[in-house]
Amino acid sequence: MVLKCTVSYDGTNYKGWQIQPDCKTVQGEIENVLQKIHGKRIEVAGSGRTDTHVHALGQVFHFETDKEMRTDQWKHKLNCMLPKDIRIQAVERMNDDFHARFSCISKRYDYLVSWNMDDPFIRHTKAVVKKKLDVEKMKEASSVLLGTHDFTSFTSSKIHEEKDRVRTITRCEIIEHEDYVQMIFEGDGFLRYQIRVMAQCLIEIGNHKLTKEDFKSMLEACDKHVCRYKADPCGLYLVQVNYE
Amino acid sequence: MVLKCTVSYDGTNYKGWQIQPDCKTVQGEIENVLQKIHGKRIEVAGSGRTDTHVHALGQVFHFETDKEMRTDQWKHKLNCMLPKDIRIQAVERMNDDFHARFSCISKRYDYLVSWNMDDPFIRHTKAVVKKKLDVEKMKEASSVLLGTHDFTSFTSSKIHEEKDRVRTITRCEIIEHEDYVQMIFEGDGFLRYQIRVMAQCLIEIGNHKLTKEDFKSMLEACDKHVCRYKADPCGLYLVQVNYE
Repeated sequence: MVLKCTVSYDGTNYKGWQIQPDCKTVQGEIENVLQKIHGKRIEVAGSGRTDTHVHALGQVFHFETDKEMRTDQWKHKLNCMLPKDIRIQAVERMNDDFHARFSCISKRYDYLVSWNMDDPFIRHTKAVVKKKLDVEKMKEASSVLLGTHDFTSFTSSKIHEEKDRVRTITRCEIIEHEDYVQMIFEGDGFLRYQIRVMAQCLIEIGNHKLTKEDFKSMLEACDKHVCRYKADPCGLYLVQVNYE
Repeated sequence: MVLKCTVSYDGTNYKGWQIQPDCKTVQGEIENVLQKIHGKRIEVAGSGRTDTHVHALGQVFHFETDKEMRTDQWKHKLNCMLPKDIRIQAVERMNDDFHARFSCISKRYDYLVSWNMDDPFIRHTKAVVKKKLDVEKMKEASSVLLGTHDFTSFTSSKIHEEKDRVRTITRCEIIEHEDYVQMIFEGDGFLRYQIRVMAQCLIEIGNHKLTKEDFKSMLEACDKHVCRYKADPCGLYLVQVNYE
């Protein structure tokens, strides 16, 4: 039977989602627990990776099991055995053809950046800038991202893994809170580092270091060397993974 | 000249406020920075101690200095040199007779306890219980604490340092939030562990493990062996220290 799990994690103490030898990773912690439950290695498939220190409110993974348990019992058992910074939110039984990565149709990531330099509690959960951002300028510039584009300019210059770099962004919303900005990015998929690059561009725009026109030109250049900005991972959250 | 500093800290990584050999403490970090600035040891006096893992929004300390700097420059300089989980909120120049501990007339502590077992982000900043607390029962019982009492029953059974254990609590307010309770305790002073003992009693009352009458009897017993409850330090915040 295939189980779909939705999981939140505080990524502060993890070297990202994906299992790696000799590193503490979220997938690694989950597979360790499943191994204890099954007495054998159980591989989980995530909807995608998250980088070192990146958080999740609604990452999704699936795995196959022959253990018979109600889904609420699965949730309880997993949460009892997992570390407290990884919390299963929901477990659902799926058809055998469900795949956390390949069945996914869209994802939402949020990026949080604060200008409250005096708050000692946000250092792992929000990026921090030295002065209040010009949120109106960020809102204006965010429209540049909407729609279907080749996002080559906004991926890592060192990574060549993705040949097709065309993606569609369906939502890019900038919400001002008392002392921080929330940027919401929703789309059919994102390239490696794409959200962090776009978020840092918008931060630079909010800092008056970059204009909407610069941002548009960068995107249109389709050149992976044109943009060197990348926001801190600690402000990034994988919020939701959507399926048909 | 005497400077009064108000400081917030995330106590997660500290063995409390008070400087101790071979331990990371908040006072230790602050004195290290002052030593770098002055080229000699500068002692700071806090309004009181906070325990290991306890947080502060508005702890107060003072120190004497012969350095001439504006108070906003002091704040900026200290925050540049301090770790990010210790943030100076304000620096004020005081009369020479000001003392952070002896001039203090009252203090406010808050205790936060959540029943959201699925949130991976609160493990260092709120205590967590397994089910929703009966907040009405906690509110009713909180009135037991108001006024002047001998709080012997609510201090550590191992500690005999305070001879006078009579204190006055002027405010004890229980506020329900979406998935947590905030308990506000304000008074002229508190014994060691007193807030954590009172908070855990109120949690037990919210859990229907203890009644208002049990709580009152415990207080009236004036017996340091009568109450074994003590709440987790991670839910406790020193919020405000008041001076004339």
